[in-house]
Amino acid sequence: MTDLLPFVAELPLVDHHCHGVVTRDVGRADFEAMLTEADTISPLGTSLFDSLIGLAGRERCAPVLGLPRHAPVEDYLARRAELGADEVARRFLRATGTTDFLLDGGFLPESLTTTAEFARLAGTRAHDVVRLEQVAEAVIRGTTARGFAAAFGDELEKRAAAAVGLKSIAAYRVGLGLAGERPSPAEVEAAAGRWLSSGGGRLADEVLHRHLVFTGLDLGLPVQFHVGYGDSDVDLHRCDPLLLTGLLRATRDRGVPILLLHNYPFHRQAAYLAQVFEHVFVDAGLITHNAGFRAPAVLAELLEIAPFGKVLFSTDAFGLAELYHLGTALFRQGLSDFVRAALDADAMSEVDAVRLCALVGHENAQRIYRWEHV
Amino acid sequence: MTDLLPFVAELPLVDHHCHGVVTRDVGRADFEAMLTEADTISPLGTSLFDSLIGLAGRERCAPVLGLPRHAPVEDYLARRAELGADEVARRFLRATGTTDFLLDGGFLPESLTTTAEFARLAGTRAHDVVRLEQVAEAVIRGTTARGFAAAFGDELEKRAAAAVGLKSIAAYRVGLGLAGERPSPAEVEAAAGRWLSSGGGRLADEVLHRHLVFTGLDLGLPVQFHVGYGDSDVDLHRCDPLLLTGLLRATRDRGVPILLLHNYPFHRQAAYLAQVFEHVFVDAGLITHNAGFRAPAVLAELLEIAPFGKVLFSTDAFGLAELYHLGTALFRQGLSDFVRAALDADAMSEVDAVRLCALVGHENAQRIYRWEHV
Amino acid sequence: MTDLLPFVAELPLVDHHCHGVVTRDVGRADFEAMLTEADTISPLGTSLFDSLIGLAGRERCAPVLGLPRHAPVEDYLARRAELGADEVARRFLRATGTTDFLLDGGFLPESLTTTAEFARLAGTRAHDVVRLEQVAEAVIRGTTARGFAAAFGDELEKRAAAAVGLKSIAAYRVGLGLAGERPSPAEVEAAAGRWLSSGGGRLADEVLHRHLVFTGLDLGLPVQFHVGYGDSDVDLHRCDPLLLTGLLRATRDRGVPILLLHNYPFHRQAAYLAQVFEHVFVDAGLITHNAGFRAPAVLAELLEIAPFGKVLFSTDAFGLAELYHLGTALFRQGLSDFVRAALDADAMSEVDAVRLCALVGHENAQRIYRWEHV
Repeated sequence: MTDLLPFVAELPLVDHHCHGVVTRDVGRADFEAMLTEADTISPLGTSLFDSLIGLAGRERCAPVLGLPRHAPVEDYLARRAELGADEVARRFLRATGTTDFLLDGGFLPESLTTTAEFARLAGTRAHDVVRLEQVAEAVIRGTTARGFAAAFGDELEKRAAAAVGLKSIAAYRVGLGLAGERPSPAEVEAAAGRWLSSGGGRLADEVLHRHLVFTGLDLGLPVQFHVGYGDSDVDLHRCDPLLLTGLLRATRDRGVPILLLHNYPFHRQAAYLAQVFEHVFVDAGLITHNAGFRAPAVLAELLEIAPFGKVLFSTDAFGLAELYHLGTALFRQGLSDFVRAALDADAMSEVDAVRLCALVGHENAQRIYRWEHV
Repeated sequence: MTDLLPFVAELPLVDHHCHGVVTRDVGRADFEAMLTEADTISPLGTSLFDSLIGLAGRERCAPVLGLPRHAPVEDYLARRAELGADEVARRFLRATGTTDFLLDGGFLPESLTTTAEFARLAGTRAHDVVRLEQVAEAVIRGTTARGFAAAFGDELEKRAAAAVGLKSIAAYRVGLGLAGERPSPAEVEAAAGRWLSSGGGRLADEVLHRHLVFTGLDLGLPVQFHVGYGDSDVDLHRCDPLLLTGLLRATRDRGVPILLLHNYPFHRQAAYLAQVFEHVFVDAGLITHNAGFRAPAVLAELLEIAPFGKVLFSTDAFGLAELYHLGTALFRQGLSDFVRAALDADAMSEVDAVRLCALVGHENAQRIYRWEHV
Repeated sequence: MTDLLPFVAELPLVDHHCHGVVTRDVGRADFEAMLTEADTISPLGTSLFDSLIGLAGRERCAPVLGLPRHAPVEDYLARRAELGADEVARRFLRATGTTDFLLDGGFLPESLTTTAEFARLAGTRAHDVVRLEQVAEAVIRGTTARGFAAAFGDELEKRAAAAVGLKSIAAYRVGLGLAGERPSPAEVEAAAGRWLSSGGGRLADEVLHRHLVFTGLDLGLPVQFHVGYGDSDVDLHRCDPLLLTGLLRATRDRGVPILLLHNYPFHRQAAYLAQVFEHVFVDAGLITHNAGFRAPAVLAELLEIAPFGKVLFSTDAFGLAELYHLGTALFRQGLSDFVRAALDADAMSEVDAVRLCALVGHENAQRIYRWEHV
């Protein structure tokens, strides 16, 4: 890789979207299954280590565990087991240079660190982001169709009090084709009734996902949306951020930020939304570590038309401590390569370069999430 | 930036799609609002100057006003005010090396130069492109449902007599999912009736936009389509040029060119259409200046499968004189970088390089628009 | 171009999807029409040689015929005619370094070499891939609505006995929006009835295309899908591989490979499917030669998230002997450039580089198609 520009190497980062780290020791199959968005290792393919993220792990993570770059997988996993889950987590999280982690604790919480445990391992601050659907699923069976909206609103307000943001996973359940208007109370009641009749399990109802988002916006907290790239549970063609256009148009005057997460391979579409809508922000989490040494190419595409004041950093790391480090290191690489190309072309002054990197690295997140008020 | 190849630096250009320049002096807020496709400056974001186009402006426009590259925004705007709108326009338009500007005068004409004023400022030729929807909206209230088709046809023929091309903004009103057949007179009459009943305001009816296009093609004049990237008024997911496939198939035998404008982020899709349909041509206007130093990367993607005989140059500049200069300078940069990469790889001979740049820079436009006949 | 890495230059290749070569001598118009996906030369454009593939042909094919690089088109065609179709085919096919060609003989078979003739010209092995729709169209008129499923099953089993894979061209007929479940016998019978009533011509029925695929999967043979880029007969917006998500989810547990061919400009979407679904494999055929010296840029995008164990090589060459050579040479260029960039960045060790190139070049295809069992 090209050397990092010094002001990018030392840039304090806010990771505005990630998850907890697994507390158990993980074996090869477990590790490999958590490495990418594949659910399992394919008997038809070869190892998932045979991928850019696998190569990036051996290149950039091995030295953090005291091994040479490109160490073989077996050596790597043996060394990892020797150090133990806690020490591994500590090393990788502290190698990131991240000052604040924003954790979505809504997926498989039982196998991951809590926010407090995470902060302790990382030796820095960690903040909570509340998953809207998790709150709705927690209240639905204790309420009625008519009572759902109030019950959800109350519970969300309670949980949000200690949180810095909210998150919608509508993309995973119904896609992003959410209508451009707030559902009426009658619509919400009818939808809650349908949900209850079907057993009140996993939420997947366009009206209710939309209702959750509007209720969240009422609280004035930034709302994150899963967009684009994810595991096989997602219908990716329903996760183009442009499908949110109507909802974005309907919410642009509220002064509440909406954050489009991941976005790949629709990151140029997301960047467009960040340019034209006042309240839209974007990142390139998840793809940054998955694309390995190609991460800079993807980040450069995101930055074509997204204003620097609208781009944030996140890893979307989940479970494996390596992913926080990889996501961060590859983001720094991408940002540095981008800025270096601009500087080499004399398309940017160094004063501007330093300022714009600070925006993307941490200032935008600090301005939006305001954790000092929590 | 890399130096321009001499034959690209001196290439005469035809800007086959742009708009007038504002006649008033503009202040900071005004300038910033016209810089990108954002409607307003976001209180949640930072300045829109913090973007690749903002940086490109300070880099490449400042010297045209006698300031150093990367001059601060304040200095730039002060100098601009000092020179006055007319002198600023004159400098930037004349710095382009454009021999012919094709102006769509259909949007906000009251605040922009006329074609004649534009030509005077630029010191060169300017030609008219007639916006189909503007003509329809001008005649609808003076006619009946039954009379609309004839009234529109007559008025269009009159206005088209002095024009070199026509333009459809169906993308902005109903998207590009236009059906693949000419609407029948009865369908047009019914649609005109609906339009009249609803007050005859802004046209937004799939049947009528389609009728306008077919009527335009009857005149034998090239028809431009807004495609892809635009402001927040557009539903970008309805502006993929592939949605025009049926209409392109239905019109391919007429021998009348159809020009897909802008296209980002669907420029590869547009290039595909330009390869497989005899009458389809493409450009990368608007994104060229918005993407700043990334413009060459976007242009290279457009040129992957679009034949050189089917690619045109445009800026889509609107209002700010800087945009004509930026769009032109960044197009030259992109074309030069592309050709230089091919020459360095010995993938193109220099003889071919010179010839192909002439096609894209002006020959294709001259062959298609034929203004000597106007 | 950059020099090829030695282990890529000498990499044995399996071309897992191509077609026969034309047996007749071809004149200029014929040659030009077969060069790209355009149906004809446009009187509005210029020569189709004015394209990256045209330039690549003059650059890389001329020397194979004993001419200097970038020889003019006239010289090239004259030399081609002088050598004759057979000698030209022999030279280009043997220049590829391909050990095994997998031929889809289902399109215009009367004008192309048979598989045996192809193997003789190429001096190596060639294997058959059976086009599902061709089999269905061969049996429909000799059967009844009720008898169709059995007649198709019997005929497919017979033809598949000597084949290494199957292919669906649903993309060309109804798009890739195939439902995610096997159609019932009653649905198949009803659809076959509709087809017979309409004359039993060209198959274009979502239920039947889907039935063909499931019947093919029952045989345990890999099933290829045309995806993305093709000629003007395709509705490209219906050929996004993500539209197959439901069908892929429904077939992932069968252990039978599904191969997404071509994919451009949806190659990142295809790569996503290859990462998350156990049985999905991808290539970048057709675009590799069409994009000329830009082929490496496209291939790099495909390799961002597709695991190396899931990427195959194909040319999708059809008719012109030049296309096998170009597709192969440009694939080698792309793979070499990609690996070289990774090696230069120390993002990959050389041991890994050699191993991963072997996977993509031939090992994945050998593991999937298992022609030693035919």
